Amino acid sequence: MEKNVLVTGGCGFIGSHLVDLLVDQGFFVTVVDDLTANTTTDFLKKHLEENKASFYKYDIRNLDLLLSIPKEFEAIFHLAAQPDVKKSVENPEYDFSVNTMGTFTILELMRKKDIRKLVFAGSGGTVYGDTTTSPTPEVHPLRPISNYGAAKAAAEMYCSSYSSLYNLDIISLRLGNIYGPRSKHGVMYDFYHKLKTNPKELEILGDGNQTKSYLYIEDTIEAFNILYQSIKSGYDVFNVSSDIAIKVVDIADEIIKLLGIKNVKFSFTEGKRGWKGDVSFVSPDVTKLMKLGWVPRVSLSNGIKLYFEWLFQA
Amino acid sequence: MEKNVLVTGGCGFIGSHLVDLLVDQGFFVTVVDDLTANTTTDFLKKHLEENKASFYKYDIRNLDLLLSIPKEFEAIFHLAAQPDVKKSVENPEYDFSVNTMGTFTILELMRKKDIRKLVFAGSGGTVYGDTTTSPTPEVHPLRPISNYGAAKAAAEMYCSSYSSLYNLDIISLRLGNIYGPRSKHGVMYDFYHKLKTNPKELEILGDGNQTKSYLYIEDTIEAFNILYQSIKSGYDVFNVSSDIAIKVVDIADEIIKLLGIKNVKFSFTEGKRGWKGDVSFVSPDVTKLMKLGWVPRVSLSNGIKLYFEWLFQA
Repeated sequence: MEKNVLVTGGCGFIGSHLVDLLVDQGFFVTVVDDLTANTTTDFLKKHLEENKASFYKYDIRNLDLLLSIPKEFEAIFHLAAQPDVKKSVENPEYDFSVNTMGTFTILELMRKKDIRKLVFAGSGGTVYGDTTTSPTPEVHPLRPISNYGAAKAAAEMYCSSYSSLYNLDIISLRLGNIYGPRSKHGVMYDFYHKLKTNPKELEILGDGNQTKSYLYIEDTIEAFNILYQSIKSGYDVFNVSSDIAIKVVDIADEIIKLLGIKNVKFSFTEGKRGWKGDVSFVSPDVTKLMKLGWVPRVSLSNGIKLYFEWLFQA
Repeated sequence: MEKNVLVTGGCGFIGSHLVDLLVDQGFFVTVVDDLTANTTTDFLKKHLEENKASFYKYDIRNLDLLLSIPKEFEAIFHLAAQPDVKKSVENPEYDFSVNTMGTFTILELMRKKDIRKLVFAGSGGTVYGDTTTSPTPEVHPLRPISNYGAAKAAAEMYCSSYSSLYNLDIISLRLGNIYGPRSKHGVMYDFYHKLKTNPKELEILGDGNQTKSYLYIEDTIEAFNILYQSIKSGYDVFNVSSDIAIKVVDIADEIIKLLGIKNVKFSFTEGKRGWKGDVSFVSPDVTKLMKLGWVPRVSLSNGIKLYFEWLFQA
């Protein structure tokens, strides 16, 4: 019997890697993506040709369109989102609409179509805000300082109520800074492009002391895999991140070393935050996830190397 | 100089008492209420006649209408809401629209009109869900089990981000079960009407062991008063409730004693919850609020007496 899952945002960075895994595992994967977040169907191409996936260019806020997809799904992996913290500050209404209302719409789809399982891509880097405990466990109060973080936290609140009211099994993954091949976003991508343009100078957003944990895409997908296998009745939430936090300037040094360039002059923009709404210290506690047998395998320097190999040829 | 505040939901139970206080304190109060939650402008009448308040029958989801009100406000007290947990379970979309998107719209109003202070009527009885700690402090994880609770928690997430991003001073009051004159909602109101119709039998929703804390309206309004006086920069959240939790059957006994009726036969509906989404044990920790000098003054038996005096003549 065909096993069907739905992946929203399946053309994006994390989503497309997840689709690869699910196809490998024998699922027929239906992808919904509106291709607005600088994405294409390129990473899906092979799966579409081999008839292991199908694609709908739908907006996740359109419940009628979602309901019209003629499939019964075992589960939804909901990754579609407006992904940019800065944009969420500049255009709160659009971010609210896609990230909060969009997730609410996915939950309504589950309720109306009787889909029982949801894996939600939440955010470990933004929902806690400026934390009082480090590493930060999942029970830490949620005090987002960006609308992106507010939306991811708000969406979790509905995951909690829908799970309880309509007997849905839901896991929220509070993802840290995920990096690796196919990513066109984030500090490493930013540094790569700046240094490619001008290898003598590097502008670092903020004072460079922002300290965050970064997780390689393979380790992230393995977390999705383990968590989906272990999904239980009710609602639960897991930090998915590295257990090591790194300073932004150290990332810069690592990249400069890898590129083999020398005498790069750093310049800094003002303030402890890289941008409005940026959390300057992010170190989620991943003990809960590791208890399920998950271990991050790719070191930061190796991960950056693998990522940059992809960037060089992309 | 005229001091102006905006009260949303100012025709409702808690809102109208708050308007009374604010008018007493010399504010000119602009009330926005769409009169859908079984309310009228009756409680405003005197203030409107004395030109101490104005009224707009506007829907809080309509930002353009809100922006058109020709006043500069020192603060907003946001109490407008779809108030019914049961309805939020039956019609999630409407509840989401009014309670989550409605609060988001109020925050957008503040951002666009440069209004600096917000007092938000959150919910202490629903945002925590089934708690692991009792009494429950504000830092307890939010795991709502009703869409009403999810909406109130989601709204708080945006209060947090908007406060940080746009320099707004915001306090969220996580209100417990508030009762007293003008309330047409809740277990006491329900028991009153059932016993008036049939004083020999009382149907109690759930198994009667649901245990919750109830706060009299005067003590609630005093909490609004103290918290508004003490509002600081940033975002903060306070439980506002009684420090004593009472079983639903004990409420029934108290009311029966007060009414002087005897031999009332109790019947129960099944399950530990009164209805889908009902939290069966609610006991918020009010230590944080009491540190600001707030003390609840009206005992439960006295409060019920005062409430029922109003119900008899209403």
